Amino acid sequence: MSTSVIRGVIGYTITPFAVDGSLDLVALEQSIDKLIASGVHAIATLGSTGEGAYLSDSEWKSVVRFSQEKIAGRVPTVVSVSDLTTARTVQRAQLAESCGATAVMVLPVSYWKLTDTEIVDHFKAVGAAINIPIMLYNNPGTSGTDLSVDLILRILSEVKNVTMVKESTGDIQRMHRLFKATDGKVAFYNGCNSLALESLVAGATGWCTAAPNLIPMLNLALWEAVQNGQMEEARTLFYRQYEMLEYITRRGLPTTIKAGLKMQGLDVGGPRLPLQPLDIQGCIFLKGLLDELAS
Amino acid sequence: MSTSVIRGVIGYTITPFAVDGSLDLVALEQSIDKLIASGVHAIATLGSTGEGAYLSDSEWKSVVRFSQEKIAGRVPTVVSVSDLTTARTVQRAQLAESCGATAVMVLPVSYWKLTDTEIVDHFKAVGAAINIPIMLYNNPGTSGTDLSVDLILRILSEVKNVTMVKESTGDIQRMHRLFKATDGKVAFYNGCNSLALESLVAGATGWCTAAPNLIPMLNLALWEAVQNGQMEEARTLFYRQYEMLEYITRRGLPTTIKAGLKMQGLDVGGPRLPLQPLDIQGCIFLKGLLDELAS
Amino acid sequence: MSTSVIRGVIGYTITPFAVDGSLDLVALEQSIDKLIASGVHAIATLGSTGEGAYLSDSEWKSVVRFSQEKIAGRVPTVVSVSDLTTARTVQRAQLAESCGATAVMVLPVSYWKLTDTEIVDHFKAVGAAINIPIMLYNNPGTSGTDLSVDLILRILSEVKNVTMVKESTGDIQRMHRLFKATDGKVAFYNGCNSLALESLVAGATGWCTAAPNLIPMLNLALWEAVQNGQMEEARTLFYRQYEMLEYITRRGLPTTIKAGLKMQGLDVGGPRLPLQPLDIQGCIFLKGLLDELAS
Amino acid sequence: MSTSVIRGVIGYTITPFAVDGSLDLVALEQSIDKLIASGVHAIATLGSTGEGAYLSDSEWKSVVRFSQEKIAGRVPTVVSVSDLTTARTVQRAQLAESCGATAVMVLPVSYWKLTDTEIVDHFKAVGAAINIPIMLYNNPGTSGTDLSVDLILRILSEVKNVTMVKESTGDIQRMHRLFKATDGKVAFYNGCNSLALESLVAGATGWCTAAPNLIPMLNLALWEAVQNGQMEEARTLFYRQYEMLEYITRRGLPTTIKAGLKMQGLDVGGPRLPLQPLDIQGCIFLKGLLDELAS
Repeated sequence: MSTSVIRGVIGYTITPFAVDGSLDLVALEQSIDKLIASGVHAIATLGSTGEGAYLSDSEWKSVVRFSQEKIAGRVPTVVSVSDLTTARTVQRAQLAESCGATAVMVLPVSYWKLTDTEIVDHFKAVGAAINIPIMLYNNPGTSGTDLSVDLILRILSEVKNVTMVKESTGDIQRMHRLFKATDGKVAFYNGCNSLALESLVAGATGWCTAAPNLIPMLNLALWEAVQNGQMEEARTLFYRQYEMLEYITRRGLPTTIKAGLKMQGLDVGGPRLPLQPLDIQGCIFLKGLLDELAS
Repeated sequence: MSTSVIRGVIGYTITPFAVDGSLDLVALEQSIDKLIASGVHAIATLGSTGEGAYLSDSEWKSVVRFSQEKIAGRVPTVVSVSDLTTARTVQRAQLAESCGATAVMVLPVSYWKLTDTEIVDHFKAVGAAINIPIMLYNNPGTSGTDLSVDLILRILSEVKNVTMVKESTGDIQRMHRLFKATDGKVAFYNGCNSLALESLVAGATGWCTAAPNLIPMLNLALWEAVQNGQMEEARTLFYRQYEMLEYITRRGLPTTIKAGLKMQGLDVGGPRLPLQPLDIQGCIFLKGLLDELAS
Repeated sequence: MSTSVIRGVIGYTITPFAVDGSLDLVALEQSIDKLIASGVHAIATLGSTGEGAYLSDSEWKSVVRFSQEKIAGRVPTVVSVSDLTTARTVQRAQLAESCGATAVMVLPVSYWKLTDTEIVDHFKAVGAAINIPIMLYNNPGTSGTDLSVDLILRILSEVKNVTMVKESTGDIQRMHRLFKATDGKVAFYNGCNSLALESLVAGATGWCTAAPNLIPMLNLALWEAVQNGQMEEARTLFYRQYEMLEYITRRGLPTTIKAGLKMQGLDVGGPRLPLQPLDIQGCIFLKGLLDELAS
Repeated sequence: MSTSVIRGVIGYTITPFAVDGSLDLVALEQSIDKLIASGVHAIATLGSTGEGAYLSDSEWKSVVRFSQEKIAGRVPTVVSVSDLTTARTVQRAQLAESCGATAVMVLPVSYWKLTDTEIVDHFKAVGAAINIPIMLYNNPGTSGTDLSVDLILRILSEVKNVTMVKESTGDIQRMHRLFKATDGKVAFYNGCNSLALESLVAGATGWCTAAPNLIPMLNLALWEAVQNGQMEEARTLFYRQYEMLEYITRRGLPTTIKAGLKMQGLDVGGPRLPLQPLDIQGCIFLKGLLDELAS
């Protein structure tokens, strides 16, 4: 199943807005080109960082079509297709496939708490509707649903094209249990920036992160150091970027990444209300981190 | 501010679906008439129970227009207008007002964690756009955002038409603190069924609940007993309906209320996928509760 | 089993220390007399408030002997006999019985997490060693062990002389479930001051509290109002004393009760280190509350 | 301050009991000799594993005197001296020092929640009473008190002989923050077995663990692999022993280590009641793990 798995640093795109609140596709293309030029191994669009949940349905379709067209196969792509309803999640997954996505990512977003059966059937419905791999995404902090390791294993066994697991609980024991239960055979991904060093050492196949929008060289160097077994180097690199990783995650990825890109010369607008642009103190702090890491 | 506050048992409507998944407005009208005939003091549409979050935008508009037309002022109405974006929340609030809603309910749904300023500004934007009262709704279990008592007090002071607070954390200390901080002057509502007795005793102005779809007489009798200061009677009535209140909340309101209505002769379809109709064991348990309470 | 249950407000004693850190039995007698004179229905010694856990074994024995001798049957007594080991808990329970205690209280204190079997056997060992009733005490916040409602019911059925349950989780749903599961037949007690109104309304047989050391009239008036079914009066009385109840619990009972007693003219020393006497700001706040409630 | 810090795998002793419940010092000597022979870098006595909290005061003194005499300087020693009161903690620390302990460990055990000032003053009192280093121990799961990173840093700066920090929250972010805040200069120790790989990679100076009683070679090999920068080897070694590390911690260290030692031919009795010897299913599972790791 080697073709069904993506390895390395998977960079998340933001979704730029113009002053009037509409999509800014010109800036989107620029931010995609910047990410690819930086050397990320793959790109993930319309995820948490991409404010996918805040877009109207037609905006969502525009972004997926435009992004796939501009990426144009230069790197593998993962499209986040999560929606509250199964029907719309399926539609989005099919659209992503038809636009050439390498894989889709599915987070079981919930308003009402889902039973295990409801979650499994949700993944089955998406799996049956497409022919590309699915990255199962567990992030109770944003979705409200925590998938236990046992439930993840059940989904892996019942839905063939679920081939990757992105874990964002922040609890590394989940990765340990996934590794042990599958003899290290399941491809799991780190989705928690401040756990980057440890998850890679524990055997993660990749790191899903928005940080390469701002500090790609440090992110990629950390990945390489672990791949090369350079433990001392990996530790040093991790602690060097630790405050940045911790801050952008805690303060909100669309908010901080958009502010940081502007500081680096690419104006992608602010996040969509009720999210507000990073405030003054935040900008000063973020600028300080960027300057320190650029030196 | 007596006209800006609703007193009593506020019954939640469900949103019926036909077999093909589309809206079933005929059944909606029947369920509304059933609720009003049962004697509830007000009706709340498109809330958690109404699967508002699972509807497309055009479905949402249809339901609010149709519901207000059929209720036709027979009882006061509260329309849940919450959306992830401020822009769409404002649009929905304006539509609700134009259709004759007595008030709107706003739950600060979030994907990314909101700062206090972002939450306050969200309520300000809605407040400035309409001329009817707002019921602030705090339910971290479904929204992902917990409004502290201090933040609620700040919103009450900064946004004039926020006149009611619906508390659904399940922690009665929040109500105690709201009461103390305002000398009992803020109108707070119980949104946690299994806290019905205690919240009313602690001074709640009303009880927002889906239970009157199934057991209206018991709900209303509990309300009356507390209003009349009949403590013994209130306690007996509460424990009589406790298991039902606890079960429908824990197992999911759209799922259980829809199953229960069918048992009572009104077919309103199942909830929308990924939510599934109540399973066999659930139906047997619910039927047992209904039979026991009907006797 | 009417004789095996205590009804009403059960007042907790503090354990006074002299300046040199030794027991101050003179002050202990005064504080006991003050409590009894205030009208509490029963007294509980050596509980959390009594710093039982901070005493040496010989101090513990002195206090139980002295207290029982001075109370001299004027009111029923409950002695907290909890210890980390089963052997010492049994010894303490036997000593309490031999000194004339009406009942003992057992909190399953733990360092290592206990299995259900270990907890049940602990209660069985104590139950088999004495002929007086046991009040099972659930307070995960101090003991580290949370007894589920199911486990409490199992202990009630397997250990005959466990006849009372003191619930201090702060979650009123535990009381609801205890009430429903036993058709209101189990005697449960409120151990969470800020839940006093609601627990009594929900059917609690008594209220275990340190507050009567400072504001006995208000505590007893609240109890009476609920017993007489005066709901409005009960609510008013509860909110009047709410801040005091909340503060002494949150800031620590030995710390605040000892400070308050000194303000009322009875010097009982400070708590034992590492616990320190209430600081200046705390004293000012507490004095304000006492003055307000005395007026 | 190189002499004030212990590096490597620090093995915890158990405290053997005879059939009549009294101390079994013969078995204690054997278990100490077994640990030292296995190659651990240091020994910690009377910790959580050693059931220190379950001993009477005179038993506690016997164990510390006997252990220090038998270890006789062959390896450095850390004695856990934690007690609920400051006075007794100080006495124990002084006794440990007088018996030749290399360092003492202090866990701020609490019954009543402690303020930051109370915690700092507790450490100050111990620090002022002895001339050997203190290992601050943070383990909210057993102590009920969680020391924030900021509070730990404050104690490090205010109490000179606090030179080591043992972190057992299971949250590796605490170690990251300690490392960053002190530029990697504070000596922190892993106290959470299932975090052994990651904490060492993140820069821990040592690993405090009871596992070497049963599988010392695997524990020491993991330590060596990380010291030598062999990342692949370290990962393999960690996953090999992972289930054992996870199980003994979750099921209770005194319970499982004592059962395991018996399987390995050293009868040290069971833990002290209410703790019970490992049950049949547990013994079968543990035996399976031991056999697998011995092969």
